[in-house]
Amino acid sequence: MFLRQCWYVIAWDHEIPDDGLFSRTVLGEPIVVFRTRQGLAALEDRCCHRLAPLSAGRKEGDCVRCGYHGLTFDATGRCVAIPGVERIPAAARVRRYPVALRNRWVFVWMGDPDQADPALLPDNFSCDHPQWHHRPGYMHYDVDHRLICDNLLDFSHLSWVHEKTLGGSPQIALARPEIESLPRGIRVTRRVPSVPAPPYYQRFRRFDTPVDRWFIYDFLVPGVLLMHSGGRPSEDPPEDLSRAVRLHSCQALTPETATTTHYFFQQAHHGEQEDTTVAELIFDSLKAAFHEDREMIRAQSRVIAARPDAPMLTLPMDAALVQYRRLVDRLLTREGLSEQTSARLTDPPGG
Amino acid sequence: MFLRQCWYVIAWDHEIPDDGLFSRTVLGEPIVVFRTRQGLAALEDRCCHRLAPLSAGRKEGDCVRCGYHGLTFDATGRCVAIPGVERIPAAARVRRYPVALRNRWVFVWMGDPDQADPALLPDNFSCDHPQWHHRPGYMHYDVDHRLICDNLLDFSHLSWVHEKTLGGSPQIALARPEIESLPRGIRVTRRVPSVPAPPYYQRFRRFDTPVDRWFIYDFLVPGVLLMHSGGRPSEDPPEDLSRAVRLHSCQALTPETATTTHYFFQQAHHGEQEDTTVAELIFDSLKAAFHEDREMIRAQSRVIAARPDAPMLTLPMDAALVQYRRLVDRLLTREGLSEQTSARLTDPPGG
Amino acid sequence: MFLRQCWYVIAWDHEIPDDGLFSRTVLGEPIVVFRTRQGLAALEDRCCHRLAPLSAGRKEGDCVRCGYHGLTFDATGRCVAIPGVERIPAAARVRRYPVALRNRWVFVWMGDPDQADPALLPDNFSCDHPQWHHRPGYMHYDVDHRLICDNLLDFSHLSWVHEKTLGGSPQIALARPEIESLPRGIRVTRRVPSVPAPPYYQRFRRFDTPVDRWFIYDFLVPGVLLMHSGGRPSEDPPEDLSRAVRLHSCQALTPETATTTHYFFQQAHHGEQEDTTVAELIFDSLKAAFHEDREMIRAQSRVIAARPDAPMLTLPMDAALVQYRRLVDRLLTREGLSEQTSARLTDPPGG
Repeated sequence: MFLRQCWYVIAWDHEIPDDGLFSRTVLGEPIVVFRTRQGLAALEDRCCHRLAPLSAGRKEGDCVRCGYHGLTFDATGRCVAIPGVERIPAAARVRRYPVALRNRWVFVWMGDPDQADPALLPDNFSCDHPQWHHRPGYMHYDVDHRLICDNLLDFSHLSWVHEKTLGGSPQIALARPEIESLPRGIRVTRRVPSVPAPPYYQRFRRFDTPVDRWFIYDFLVPGVLLMHSGGRPSEDPPEDLSRAVRLHSCQALTPETATTTHYFFQQAHHGEQEDTTVAELIFDSLKAAFHEDREMIRAQSRVIAARPDAPMLTLPMDAALVQYRRLVDRLLTREGLSEQTSARLTDPPGG
Repeated sequence: MFLRQCWYVIAWDHEIPDDGLFSRTVLGEPIVVFRTRQGLAALEDRCCHRLAPLSAGRKEGDCVRCGYHGLTFDATGRCVAIPGVERIPAAARVRRYPVALRNRWVFVWMGDPDQADPALLPDNFSCDHPQWHHRPGYMHYDVDHRLICDNLLDFSHLSWVHEKTLGGSPQIALARPEIESLPRGIRVTRRVPSVPAPPYYQRFRRFDTPVDRWFIYDFLVPGVLLMHSGGRPSEDPPEDLSRAVRLHSCQALTPETATTTHYFFQQAHHGEQEDTTVAELIFDSLKAAFHEDREMIRAQSRVIAARPDAPMLTLPMDAALVQYRRLVDRLLTREGLSEQTSARLTDPPGG
Repeated sequence: MFLRQCWYVIAWDHEIPDDGLFSRTVLGEPIVVFRTRQGLAALEDRCCHRLAPLSAGRKEGDCVRCGYHGLTFDATGRCVAIPGVERIPAAARVRRYPVALRNRWVFVWMGDPDQADPALLPDNFSCDHPQWHHRPGYMHYDVDHRLICDNLLDFSHLSWVHEKTLGGSPQIALARPEIESLPRGIRVTRRVPSVPAPPYYQRFRRFDTPVDRWFIYDFLVPGVLLMHSGGRPSEDPPEDLSRAVRLHSCQALTPETATTTHYFFQQAHHGEQEDTTVAELIFDSLKAAFHEDREMIRAQSRVIAARPDAPMLTLPMDAALVQYRRLVDRLLTREGLSEQTSARLTDPPGG
């Protein structure tokens, strides 16, 4: 059961070829994306005739031709040619998905096309900004996307899962974050004063003294994280960011199926000029950490699969993820969908 | 749900060893085939004692001995020895399948043995004929055999799937075939006048001018295609076949399970003497084309599996496959089996 | 459906690291085993918080710390630390399994901990005895453990499956064993007079004349075989064991899941001093034979999976396995579990 009245990231812009077809499954639905003179088009990747994937055919002008029997569809999903057939039946069409390109992310709208609202696109500005520099990342996960949402909604795991990479000290787990409700998400603010700089900070400049770190992020439906983070020497005056590390991360989880997930991510650093070495080091470091997450979450997922009814004990650090799951439930209900993903969650005790 | 009162191809003759056991699953039933002094024998490949496969044992004379506890079965399936047991229970037997060898194809009868009727064997003459030359082929498919039947019942796909191999021009898709009912199949006749010779024709002789091509085949239950095809220069008088390419193809689909299929095939060329180079070239070309089919059909099958209830839109080129599926349904009903494989098919519109 | 009020072998002692975590699944339950100053501890390998496997964390002193959010559990399964949380909820605990180490086998008790009874541990003395020498073995099986029990309860298969390794002559299949009931198992006694020595006997000493062989074993719930076997020249007086080969084998089947099984085994030979060459040769020979078994039983399992309702014909050699399955059923009933594993078994006919 997925939220449908949402924009889902289906690809990085550079993944869509100039003159070919790109295919990816979103919410269990195979979708083919291609470029037309008007921009991007996204269609159901399943010919209405014999159900072959259109992506096994080819792009012809602004159309897609099925590789099985040659049916041709335009960017609206209407069949415009059937070899050997003069009169094209009105039913010969495939579903069209509204598509949007914003800051290098390609989004598809999975709900009613008439309700596709550009105002609901997340502000992933640092994916395409002259003063924010990054490398784009993609990972595939063979787990339910909700387990990855949980992970992103509770950074206390940094102290353990990423002890040797992102994390650093146990103080992160100890710093209880502030949590605020947003109309379509949760805002999490965590400030960690006076801790050792994490190893990868040394890639920006030398840090010999403790730093104050911050992590402030919005986690928005259907699974987008937008985070400002950074750190600066604790000894510097609060208003002085001259020796700070300033980062902005955009991450998007898109369910491929109920049990597999696409993960788009980047972490941009701020600077007048791009330092390609730093951009690559941050990317490598992020990828290493995300592999640590994936290993843990896959292990967790296997344990859950072996006994799906095992109860979870809600703890204070779960406050954000519980709030988020309840928000998703309210939105599912509003869409007329009934699964209550938070049904088994209890209130976290006061920490 | 499969037709049972049919001969199914289980193997090419040369696949059965002279002094060993051959095993293959047909309609979900494991079958062991071996040679006796009287000819071929086919038994249930499952010992009646502890259900070990007999094919994991060995041939002893005209019998099979189970490799687990030594029970021995004769060619009729009767247990003739149980080590350490003097009195063999009457229930100690495995199922026997009527078996027939015709023109190098080994057939098993999957229905009531008393109704096994040699008159129902298909005329696969070119598999073993002094003036028809071929190489025998076998492929395994991990899809429902019906999707492959569909493919063979609509050659309009040649223009797209085999554009660069068998197919050639879009005219094939445009040439609407004649379709006739047969008692146990469909006859499809397609004539394509004045088209460029397909690339592989050049292997017979040089073709610089347009050719008239023909494809005339019977597609018979439970999935056997027998096709005369060929082409000759359009400029030659109709009765002159001296510069013609004449081919005969025998192809048989045998369901291994509901979702996997055995595919036996050859395409023979006519000639007084075998030209081994041509025979090999045709075989290679056919195999390349059949791999193209398999790739497309597997892609189609994956799309269907992801949403089994997606509707198919019937088009004029589907006339033969719709007729065939309805014939199969009538025969299933006659056998007392109820699944209606054509239930979701509508009549094709007039093309 | 498994017996729970039993000790199950989970590991050889040497598999548990001195300062780390060992994980294995028993009866579908993931279990983490580790060493404390008091001995061995076995806990549910599933954190009570977010269900991550504890074995993905680390050992800290006599405790385990979860690698996801840092919860720490002592050897009784009680949570003793939650980073950032002062008051630990009473519900924060994981299941503890009683654990026992006996003669190098590590056992876990899968039933009610209060009923864990050391008197029910099997007498696997030859796993750790100065006059019995062996190499420890482990195999993984992707079949229901009951098929392996069946195999071990009917040695008539030695003549066929192990014809060229352990087995030797068909006389083994012909020698009907004595079968006795034990409170928690079956005793099988088979004497095979005057047969050729099996090939591997030559590794002890030269055998030119026929031998009398014996196989006397207890097969105990939940799947432990303890066997005395051997052979001596038939020409020697009965009381003279000076030229005998004397072996003791301990084998334990532990269901991993309903369809996969752990197999722990050894076959020790008697002697004042260890002859390492002989110990290794016996181990290699045993392993080769057990691979033969596994190949046959996997083939059998695949045939059964393809048609789970195929009936089995009970024969005289099945007497022990039928008795054993009925014993298991009585014990399951006594535990309040209802599956009748012998329901489809009929009485064996008189042999």
